[in-house]
Amino acid sequence: MNGNTFGRLFQVTTFGESHGEAMGCTVSGCPAGLELSESDIQGDLDRRKPGQSMITTSRGEADAVSIKSGVQDGYTTGTPIGMVIKNKDARSGKYEPFITAPRPSHGDFTYSAKFGTRNWGGGGRSSARETVNWVAAGAIAKKILATQGIELKAHVNQIGSIEAPDVSFEEILEHSEENDVRCAHPETAAEMQELIEDYQEEGDSIGGSIYFEAQGVPTGLGAPRFDSLSARLGQAMMAVPATTAFEFGLGREAREWTGKDRNDDWEFDSEGTPTPIENDHGGIQGGISSGEPIYGEVTLHAPTSIPKSQQTADWETGELKEEKVIGRHDPVLPPRGVPVVEAMLALTLADFMLLSGRINPDRLDDQPGEYDTDYHPSNPENE
Amino acid sequence: MNGNTFGRLFQVTTFGESHGEAMGCTVSGCPAGLELSESDIQGDLDRRKPGQSMITTSRGEADAVSIKSGVQDGYTTGTPIGMVIKNKDARSGKYEPFITAPRPSHGDFTYSAKFGTRNWGGGGRSSARETVNWVAAGAIAKKILATQGIELKAHVNQIGSIEAPDVSFEEILEHSEENDVRCAHPETAAEMQELIEDYQEEGDSIGGSIYFEAQGVPTGLGAPRFDSLSARLGQAMMAVPATTAFEFGLGREAREWTGKDRNDDWEFDSEGTPTPIENDHGGIQGGISSGEPIYGEVTLHAPTSIPKSQQTADWETGELKEEKVIGRHDPVLPPRGVPVVEAMLALTLADFMLLSGRINPDRLDDQPGEYDTDYHPSNPENE
Amino acid sequence: MNGNTFGRLFQVTTFGESHGEAMGCTVSGCPAGLELSESDIQGDLDRRKPGQSMITTSRGEADAVSIKSGVQDGYTTGTPIGMVIKNKDARSGKYEPFITAPRPSHGDFTYSAKFGTRNWGGGGRSSARETVNWVAAGAIAKKILATQGIELKAHVNQIGSIEAPDVSFEEILEHSEENDVRCAHPETAAEMQELIEDYQEEGDSIGGSIYFEAQGVPTGLGAPRFDSLSARLGQAMMAVPATTAFEFGLGREAREWTGKDRNDDWEFDSEGTPTPIENDHGGIQGGISSGEPIYGEVTLHAPTSIPKSQQTADWETGELKEEKVIGRHDPVLPPRGVPVVEAMLALTLADFMLLSGRINPDRLDDQPGEYDTDYHPSNPENE
Amino acid sequence: MNGNTFGRLFQVTTFGESHGEAMGCTVSGCPAGLELSESDIQGDLDRRKPGQSMITTSRGEADAVSIKSGVQDGYTTGTPIGMVIKNKDARSGKYEPFITAPRPSHGDFTYSAKFGTRNWGGGGRSSARETVNWVAAGAIAKKILATQGIELKAHVNQIGSIEAPDVSFEEILEHSEENDVRCAHPETAAEMQELIEDYQEEGDSIGGSIYFEAQGVPTGLGAPRFDSLSARLGQAMMAVPATTAFEFGLGREAREWTGKDRNDDWEFDSEGTPTPIENDHGGIQGGISSGEPIYGEVTLHAPTSIPKSQQTADWETGELKEEKVIGRHDPVLPPRGVPVVEAMLALTLADFMLLSGRINPDRLDDQPGEYDTDYHPSNPENE
Repeated sequence: MNGNTFGRLFQVTTFGESHGEAMGCTVSGCPAGLELSESDIQGDLDRRKPGQSMITTSRGEADAVSIKSGVQDGYTTGTPIGMVIKNKDARSGKYEPFITAPRPSHGDFTYSAKFGTRNWGGGGRSSARETVNWVAAGAIAKKILATQGIELKAHVNQIGSIEAPDVSFEEILEHSEENDVRCAHPETAAEMQELIEDYQEEGDSIGGSIYFEAQGVPTGLGAPRFDSLSARLGQAMMAVPATTAFEFGLGREAREWTGKDRNDDWEFDSEGTPTPIENDHGGIQGGISSGEPIYGEVTLHAPTSIPKSQQTADWETGELKEEKVIGRHDPVLPPRGVPVVEAMLALTLADFMLLSGRINPDRLDDQPGEYDTDYHPSNPENE
Repeated sequence: MNGNTFGRLFQVTTFGESHGEAMGCTVSGCPAGLELSESDIQGDLDRRKPGQSMITTSRGEADAVSIKSGVQDGYTTGTPIGMVIKNKDARSGKYEPFITAPRPSHGDFTYSAKFGTRNWGGGGRSSARETVNWVAAGAIAKKILATQGIELKAHVNQIGSIEAPDVSFEEILEHSEENDVRCAHPETAAEMQELIEDYQEEGDSIGGSIYFEAQGVPTGLGAPRFDSLSARLGQAMMAVPATTAFEFGLGREAREWTGKDRNDDWEFDSEGTPTPIENDHGGIQGGISSGEPIYGEVTLHAPTSIPKSQQTADWETGELKEEKVIGRHDPVLPPRGVPVVEAMLALTLADFMLLSGRINPDRLDDQPGEYDTDYHPSNPENE
Repeated sequence: MNGNTFGRLFQVTTFGESHGEAMGCTVSGCPAGLELSESDIQGDLDRRKPGQSMITTSRGEADAVSIKSGVQDGYTTGTPIGMVIKNKDARSGKYEPFITAPRPSHGDFTYSAKFGTRNWGGGGRSSARETVNWVAAGAIAKKILATQGIELKAHVNQIGSIEAPDVSFEEILEHSEENDVRCAHPETAAEMQELIEDYQEEGDSIGGSIYFEAQGVPTGLGAPRFDSLSARLGQAMMAVPATTAFEFGLGREAREWTGKDRNDDWEFDSEGTPTPIENDHGGIQGGISSGEPIYGEVTLHAPTSIPKSQQTADWETGELKEEKVIGRHDPVLPPRGVPVVEAMLALTLADFMLLSGRINPDRLDDQPGEYDTDYHPSNPENE
Repeated sequence: MNGNTFGRLFQVTTFGESHGEAMGCTVSGCPAGLELSESDIQGDLDRRKPGQSMITTSRGEADAVSIKSGVQDGYTTGTPIGMVIKNKDARSGKYEPFITAPRPSHGDFTYSAKFGTRNWGGGGRSSARETVNWVAAGAIAKKILATQGIELKAHVNQIGSIEAPDVSFEEILEHSEENDVRCAHPETAAEMQELIEDYQEEGDSIGGSIYFEAQGVPTGLGAPRFDSLSARLGQAMMAVPATTAFEFGLGREAREWTGKDRNDDWEFDSEGTPTPIENDHGGIQGGISSGEPIYGEVTLHAPTSIPKSQQTADWETGELKEEKVIGRHDPVLPPRGVPVVEAMLALTLADFMLLSGRINPDRLDDQPGEYDTDYHPSNPENE
């Protein structure tokens, strides 16, 4: 309702501003019995964190997550998982010119318009720092999905006009984390890196896009019609800061295809179940998963905070002025956006797995906690 | 939760299958005091209805809406508005070959996978016939928005590879309903018409896209972060049947723009409020409306039901077979999709207007119903 | 959000006013495969309908339900079930004195205060006629629960100061429908009947209460903490028109019990599962079902519409006046409230059964529809 | 959905277990511009905290709240308020006998049944320690309500069979915090204290009840029908741990009243608005607030954890055993429950104030933060 909660059965609720004391989130609805520790989450946080390379902001944050509840003896208990991540390296001073004079195309004006005030340090609540919460929650969702045979991954497939060729899921798994750009095609990654550095040098920034894919998604996920899998993915991905386009399957290109060409004929799989011969439909038919890989793309516009002189209008003084945004900013978003997109994909799928009753608790983990016993009163065998 | 309800304060809940007895929806949360009759709704239903031109399905449906509740003496009462639209011209026979052998790229297999059964006549619940409910509810949302100074309109801007040049909002208002394609650029519309007829003739279908725009949207709509205006529009539009891409502002193209080029500098409007000089941001900044027009695009793939032979796999007999879909189907979706996209845009904006407390009840209507009096107990003047 | 929808996974959304054209509801989330026809619903509607005895309003309504969607070949399909019940015997004339002068203790003033207007005929949306929708939806919930081994029933246990002695669940099943009062203790029922007729004769009305019980509820239903089973039942029952108190287990009396007396010691059941020796806790511990019968009570105040002269204040004329409510009204509510309370209990339990993933689809029904086949793509055996 | 979130526009989401590292909650939807610091919240936490008197548990917790976000320069910003309260004095050892042998009438068995495991230290998530979160969030709600002219208070009106006479709202404000029992009638409080000490001495516990009242609630709050004010209060109050009954207005007693006696005639108030002469209806008519004080009662059963020998059934060993609960426990709940009931009342009313658009932002506070200016872009005067 208020934009701080995502999901229906697997729910994450977040708080925090860029320069506040801490970020935090509560994951509600995580099934009991999942082995979970902070180290399961830290890996994705490290992939998202600032200062990880020359093409990210130099803000220094360890982004160390602390789990406050919901885990006992190393296993989730089914009760809410509270997590807190402290903010350490906040320097608000450079934002003072923009308190009453909004940065171009940022949320400064609109947040002030909505609330009549705003936390202005580092962009406050509108900052992409918020996504540290999403990645923390998403790491738990990913772990659940992995136990159920669902694997997902994203990589950067375009920066400016440099587009990576199509790569397989295996190549994404293998190569996307090998370079700072997080592009699974090494040659293209090198070109992208160069392009980004050029823009960075001249005080500008550049847009790009992220390709995502999920494998092992069972058939039947998605609630027709307003909560179809495509609709919920649309919400999830369009919530990612700076996103201006979401596509799945053939995406935007589908407008140029005929029915005959796009339609995927049916054959039988090895077990005699109908299965589409191709996957032009992107793993979703009628808003429901078909069992084929789900894939799509998200476009992120160029970072708006750039150290170039731009015109703003100061509502306190009534004067126009030229200002540069001097803080520490990313010259491009997709490299750090990859774990964010993965997180939103994982949160969406985990939610639908729960809604569809498709989580197999026996696969969550078979190693009970120290004090657990074989007896589970809810186990049908015991009833 | 179940996909049959959209919106939070302005909510629509729907029922109905393509070949069932009736479609229907309940609009909950409509403010009291709006003048409303069936004729306010029928216009949009007629724009969506089948059989309206040579390039739509020939199924004959009057799509006459009947309001069952929520209106008294011609004005809404604030209580739910129940609406029913009867199905008349259903011919299920032609779907029998597909009961256990799914049509390619339709929802036949996935609905069966999700529910273990499905209503197969005409696609049942997966049919785009459902959107008759959305258009009915959307017409009410549009009327509310109009009283608040918000106007919105869509038109078809691409069919296959034929793309319309950019047109102004005024041109869309003026020309989009002049031709069967609903393209606001008459010359392009004629080309599109020809292309569609070509595909129709050879038993194939073709994709396309719809451009939408809303003017007069106040600043401050949108709940950061998961329920941002862009996220909720993403959900709304991706729920439209056959949609494979959603974009706003520069959309997919933003990936190729630099920050300097895309950023919109600020100036003052005539009343001294900061206002962006350009609108490359598409009316949404930080997930919240900026006061500029909101615009974007939706891509709809080609209709999947085509009278060409395609391979399917019969799960009852275990045999592959070639089948043509013989029913009455559209060769292209955007022309009838225009009122659907408008409806989803209107439903989203009306919901945010309510959530933001931005509906001015005095503007809803100043003509009281027969038995209303000047005295409203909730009127602060009377307290 | 707007008060017209109940439930989360098993959701019912309603519309309709007392003197409008029709009442209606949409049940969303009903599992596929339940055998269902209008006759399954009509029975409960007949128990609730007006004019069924001398101690109910004489308004004549057949309350015949028509299912518009969601059922195919006699079985639910998992898609929303739309239902419509026509209003036939509405006579609004007698309400004209109250258009601008509210009836005492009715919703006339508060609805007008909230909405600035109201549907005044027969109480409009505030009328208990709305509960016809609840009973229709509840009948479906009951049928689901029955397939899962859950049975529930209510009866009238107090009218005025006449209180029925405790009766067993079996007695409630056997006797509660044998008399017009719906009290399972025949002797007490006769006394109640007499008391009601006395009040009816003198133009007054009287309060009473309903006892409810559910047997066969599995352990583990209820989402701690705000959505505990007791909290959700509290909402469900307090929504019943005229309800002023909700209790479960020892209820109000628990304030006088010691911990030692109220605590229920544990023993083992025949299968070796811990089970409470007594059930002073009312089937709910820590907000979650314990496996014991769930029981409680609901108090309904006397009907407010009585043909006695009462003072009202006309906000149009600014004058006080004495008025009698002349319409056709019930002298007491619990006899017709019994199926309403059962419906709310059933809706709550069905929702929790779905939320807990405790619905066994194989038990819903094993007789497939005409066109169904043994092959269900979602069946694990087929995967 | 999962029981960890309460409210729709004013939402609180909680985490934490009795013996975990910390409790915490996120308040989402709090309007911007409310002056707020930790000291506004600490007062209510101190009223709830353990060890405050001889008749509460001796567990030692400072319950110091730390606000992590949502406040800038002493004023709320409209973004979520994250709060954390550390657990310090947890001693789990005494719970070891109950890991696989549930305490009578506690949530031990049902939590294990629901989740297949549970956090057993101090009752884990089922512990009333959770209500520290509710009180923290409720304190913010109270502060909002106070700015809008709404005041609310509760006191203990019955312990065992000792019942306090009716007291006025002013007396509750004046006297309820003067004694450890929190009963506004000093003589009765002394008797209650004695009774509690008697039970405490003999190792038993006793039930009781809390009366609550809210004054200054405007007309028109409550969403008919499932979300009526009475229904939502029912949910809110029945969620309070150990609650077995909720009543408003005449409550349970209404079953014995006639319509004529209970109905409240109308007169005009000094401004010419209809107003009920009496308030037997408890401030709610047709589920919507009438403008009269809202009052009611909540019954809390005796604490289940008592140092008396009770029988339990160990599901691991399969043996029955006698155990005493040795931890530090309250002999009675209402004295510490008073701020909890107030919190739930405040959360419910604040939510409805937001839903009804009845929060007047100008009354929230007129002292801007350090960097705020008179210019608020959303201010109609500036548009």
